[in-house]
Amino acid sequence: MTSSSARAEGWEQRARSGDRVALARLLTLAERGGDEFADLHPTIHARMGHAHRIGFTGPPGAGKSTLVEGYALELRKRAESVAVICVDPTSPFTGGALLGDRVRMNRLTLDPGCFVRSMASRGWFGGLARTSEDVADVFDAVGYDRVLIETVGVGQSEIDVARAADTTVVVLVPGTGDAVQAMKAGLMEVADLFVVNKADRPGVERVVAELEEVLQLRADAEEKPAIVQTVAMNGEGIDELARRIDEHKARSAASGRLATRRAARAAEKVRRLLEQALRERSFAGKGMERRIEEALQSSTPRSPYAVARELLLELGLSGKEARKP
Amino acid sequence: MTSSSARAEGWEQRARSGDRVALARLLTLAERGGDEFADLHPTIHARMGHAHRIGFTGPPGAGKSTLVEGYALELRKRAESVAVICVDPTSPFTGGALLGDRVRMNRLTLDPGCFVRSMASRGWFGGLARTSEDVADVFDAVGYDRVLIETVGVGQSEIDVARAADTTVVVLVPGTGDAVQAMKAGLMEVADLFVVNKADRPGVERVVAELEEVLQLRADAEEKPAIVQTVAMNGEGIDELARRIDEHKARSAASGRLATRRAARAAEKVRRLLEQALRERSFAGKGMERRIEEALQSSTPRSPYAVARELLLELGLSGKEARKP
Repeated sequence: MTSSSARAEGWEQRARSGDRVALARLLTLAERGGDEFADLHPTIHARMGHAHRIGFTGPPGAGKSTLVEGYALELRKRAESVAVICVDPTSPFTGGALLGDRVRMNRLTLDPGCFVRSMASRGWFGGLARTSEDVADVFDAVGYDRVLIETVGVGQSEIDVARAADTTVVVLVPGTGDAVQAMKAGLMEVADLFVVNKADRPGVERVVAELEEVLQLRADAEEKPAIVQTVAMNGEGIDELARRIDEHKARSAASGRLATRRAARAAEKVRRLLEQALRERSFAGKGMERRIEEALQSSTPRSPYAVARELLLELGLSGKEARKP
Repeated sequence: MTSSSARAEGWEQRARSGDRVALARLLTLAERGGDEFADLHPTIHARMGHAHRIGFTGPPGAGKSTLVEGYALELRKRAESVAVICVDPTSPFTGGALLGDRVRMNRLTLDPGCFVRSMASRGWFGGLARTSEDVADVFDAVGYDRVLIETVGVGQSEIDVARAADTTVVVLVPGTGDAVQAMKAGLMEVADLFVVNKADRPGVERVVAELEEVLQLRADAEEKPAIVQTVAMNGEGIDELARRIDEHKARSAASGRLATRRAARAAEKVRRLLEQALRERSFAGKGMERRIEEALQSSTPRSPYAVARELLLELGLSGKEARKP
């Protein structure tokens, strides 16, 4: 064991006994990735499995932050410890403008049984899912009862983040064709539970009816997601949401689906780590970026496909010729 | 040249002379990817560069489809040929429900100067950007004047698709904090042009004011995106949008930014192709999926990090040991 991983193990022990500074260091290590976190991960992994991971996704403006805050406060009333991961695509350019959210989460950050971690999503390539899962692993290992993962956008990668949970909650609001928009955004298949937030607005019956209609098409009737109406701003429906989330967890634990889902998550993680390692090891130290640039900058414009083939040949990784007679 | 690539070259010639069946075949080839398309790509690449590629993104429900349709009709009035790529995350489960959009695009699909292609986004891993770009390449090569790329979601991968264009349009609607939501979704940095659609609704002044405030923070004043108000449903503001899009193209062509952007796109494509090839060649035919499963299914649960390291050693790709003294 290296001295840096011994230090990380020390942080892990201190974080488990409630040291928030040590926990923050572990989270930074998880976000950064790399060998130091990989060395530590078996220790973390051996302690994982207690926490219930709940992902929240849905279109921007659905009130996810307020809902997550309200749900976290509800869990705190029952003396459960809660970690919140906000996948928050701030940028150097817009960073300052988003303080609003953090201020809103103040009621949580002042509570010692609660830990809020904001993560920026832009600037990584495919790193969003890896990093949020590693951060959730840390919270799980050090003993949090619930880990809530909230995404801001509603695209492929954000949905992948939210579905990498034990229970995935899709948040919608009443409005023209919100259920149809949810289908279009691919949200229907990932939902274990729907929340129609801002349910004091007109149109709530319509979005619920639309959802129910679409859900009837789902073949796996046993798994049919519940639809919960909330007004997160004043706490309405949050207790019902909490009950439904627990119900989903209990049902999927009893049926074995929870175990299957976690196993699939582990396999997916291995695949992602292998891909990342292959990429780094093939590209690093070979001046690949410079070669790509050179190869593209010939006197006649060249097809990226032709350039990629040439570079694969150079790397000794071309399987093309061998496959032809 | 193989017989299959000779056939594909034949389709390419026929597509250029207006054969829509041949064009559809080429598009399927592009979507499928693989060696056959790679063989053809240099031919396509040599003919590319004429089309103006315009990406449209923004939250679900902003009215992007209607706007894109209106803009396409405006271009048709000027006798320009138009291709529309709808990145449409339908699924086997929801597929049928989305016909609405296609019906709405009817005015376009009946027009011989127009070609609409819907692509499903779910089910690929990282393939969204590659595929939509290859499809755009085909439209470009066979002579379309404009290629419009519309995404449904507004996450990392959808934004990457929309920004892989010469001009990226971000579509918003009046509503509580829409500009703030756009920032949160990472849309501010990718926009060359903003559209505030449904501008007959209350709150339009507010969203425009918010946008202008945020845009003042952008350092590159010369590049400041215009803000266009539209009511796509009745065609209001579409001519202004068309004018602004042309303005952006002309300005970025004159300044050299268009060329830089296209070169960066080509380099990114090479990187993506290399990654894909590395993945396929390292995983294929080695029973990797089975090995991952076996390694995870030991009597004690194992860390995916530990499993990934073991498999990299097996593949002879571990760089870890060598780096340690």
